Amino acid sequence: MSSKALEVHRKLKGKIEVRGKFKVRSMNDLSIIYTPHVAEVALEIARDRSKVYEYTIKHDTIAIITDGSRVLGLGNIGAEAALPVMEGKALIFKEYAGVNAFPICLSTTDKEEMIRAVKAISPSFAAMSIEDIESPKCLEIVDRLQQELDIPVFHDDQHGTAVVVLAALLNALRLVGKSASDVKITVVGAGAAGYGITSILVEDGSFNPSNITVLDSKGIISKQRMFEDNPYKRRIADLTNRSTEGSLRDALNGSDVLIGVSGKAGLISMDMLRLMARDAIVFALTNPDPEVKPYEARRHARILATGRSDYYNQINNAVVFPHLIRSVIDKRRRVIDWSMLVRVAYAIAEYTRSKEWFDERHIIPTIMDRGLREVIASVID
Amino acid sequence: MSSKALEVHRKLKGKIEVRGKFKVRSMNDLSIIYTPHVAEVALEIARDRSKVYEYTIKHDTIAIITDGSRVLGLGNIGAEAALPVMEGKALIFKEYAGVNAFPICLSTTDKEEMIRAVKAISPSFAAMSIEDIESPKCLEIVDRLQQELDIPVFHDDQHGTAVVVLAALLNALRLVGKSASDVKITVVGAGAAGYGITSILVEDGSFNPSNITVLDSKGIISKQRMFEDNPYKRRIADLTNRSTEGSLRDALNGSDVLIGVSGKAGLISMDMLRLMARDAIVFALTNPDPEVKPYEARRHARILATGRSDYYNQINNAVVFPHLIRSVIDKRRRVIDWSMLVRVAYAIAEYTRSKEWFDERHIIPTIMDRGLREVIASVID
Repeated sequence: MSSKALEVHRKLKGKIEVRGKFKVRSMNDLSIIYTPHVAEVALEIARDRSKVYEYTIKHDTIAIITDGSRVLGLGNIGAEAALPVMEGKALIFKEYAGVNAFPICLSTTDKEEMIRAVKAISPSFAAMSIEDIESPKCLEIVDRLQQELDIPVFHDDQHGTAVVVLAALLNALRLVGKSASDVKITVVGAGAAGYGITSILVEDGSFNPSNITVLDSKGIISKQRMFEDNPYKRRIADLTNRSTEGSLRDALNGSDVLIGVSGKAGLISMDMLRLMARDAIVFALTNPDPEVKPYEARRHARILATGRSDYYNQINNAVVFPHLIRSVIDKRRRVIDWSMLVRVAYAIAEYTRSKEWFDERHIIPTIMDRGLREVIASVID
Repeated sequence: MSSKALEVHRKLKGKIEVRGKFKVRSMNDLSIIYTPHVAEVALEIARDRSKVYEYTIKHDTIAIITDGSRVLGLGNIGAEAALPVMEGKALIFKEYAGVNAFPICLSTTDKEEMIRAVKAISPSFAAMSIEDIESPKCLEIVDRLQQELDIPVFHDDQHGTAVVVLAALLNALRLVGKSASDVKITVVGAGAAGYGITSILVEDGSFNPSNITVLDSKGIISKQRMFEDNPYKRRIADLTNRSTEGSLRDALNGSDVLIGVSGKAGLISMDMLRLMARDAIVFALTNPDPEVKPYEARRHARILATGRSDYYNQINNAVVFPHLIRSVIDKRRRVIDWSMLVRVAYAIAEYTRSKEWFDERHIIPTIMDRGLREVIASVID
């Protein structure tokens, strides 16, 4: 084992650290930041609990929560194996938005135990960021935590993906000269990402829900199907109206937009892409290997985007999540809702269009773009 | 409200931060510390879970756990109010021993829920440090976690206090020329500290257990009393043999050593100190105000120590906990046991005696002493 990534990680032995913001130089310094005088601060917060935001880390510190049950494209690899991924996310939070994020990898995959644990540790944190948990468990956990916690709960697989996809889609439609109200959209995958994308497209209001078709591994999610154990697929069936029973091929026939969040590399053949309408928009977002072969697919798609950093049009949640959380906690918003997420997507899309580099291969900024923070902050009040 | 402590805390808005140890300069850097290449590290750990210690923060990162039910001398002030105190502790861990410590303040005070939460979040951490939880709940939680977790569990109120008290006591006895096997010791307070001190004195083996008397607010802890709901007081009664029923005054009569960990400022009058044997040793450790008035007490005690930083002979757990945890996690010790703690106390005592400043007013090093780390490391194998 001698890959570059293993080497870097072995050398660092952890990509983040906890550091003091105060240099202790004397016993007197110690008596202020610790006993006896820290007692004055503790008592001030005991008298008025909201002051915890004024005197402690709580105002800008979040927890990144996972159980390691669906990490990247790797499946259920467990809490310990998820830790380097969560550390990477924490590093991005700090690097791009100055948010202190601490990775909490849970030893349990039981839904109720996970909810209990997150609620139990919430006093130290300004927000919870839920990551890489299998669907639909993650959706249930996020819904429950949003109801039961007094701090905002962000779900990157759902919310982050939805925002960045909508922003990219708005710009792609402009470039191909199609209108949101007319286009037929096929979403392949009905996990957290598929559910989030469906939710934001419906919330947006400019798309015609009857033109949105969502599929899972069994085919089109239609009202005729039964979803006893997955209320989120039921909601998708209720939200999207055109859906009749059928296959992926049926759905793609005449479709203007394909959004792949299936988790299945190479799922979509060139044959299938040929069924799409002219000037097709294809977002094949499964990582690390997308649903289509990029170099072939661009012959059939006018606009192609993937999740890969080594190809143009990378659609990456990291464009959204650090800045969104920064604004939400700075403004002490209790709830992250779909209308907020739609506003963020529009702001990112508009910002992108203002750039001289904006074109069919650059429909969205990269994560390195330093203007995103202000753009996103401007629409969260 | 304009004390110095409040001012400093308001300005800092949190005394610790989470920082990257890696500067992200390019998309290529990002692809190594995050997706796609971090997947190689995740898979390596999924194949062999013990490698989480090689590639992640786990090896040198601990959680500081509290429910805020007994913070400093302030009582049950709640999780949020405990946060500035835990941050101070985290800062000391980093400053003096390079340990990354993150404060987890629990929203529940229910014992079973607390145990479940700590177990649930354990995969990210090398050790757990249990702090400022009311007794005997804290003792039960620590016992349970030591059995049920695969990482070491440290309890500062119990273990840290015991070590620093034993170290100071060994040196005080040398200075007054009394022998451990002969002295009569009175421990006032039977919470976590009192239980820890009793345990380490008995484990040490050079003290005569029948000469140790421990008291709670009801008087001497004797075998005649009933302790239905507190097995730790039952154990104290079993361990200490001299104890007959009686008051604090009865216990102090002829006692050579008084160790106050009662939580009660001013509990012990000059009248009571006069009952003690000649060359009395008095450790009045309740913070911020000790059991005795220091300036009066030193007329009756040959050696006097308190928990205060503004008086000589400060007996402060911070002399122990950062370095002890550093060594325990560096050496991957699974368990912190009493024999280890006795060795640490002897090492600190011996180190102190080797110093030219060692005298009746300097029986123990200060927290600022940079030699402690090596001294403590030398006895943990």
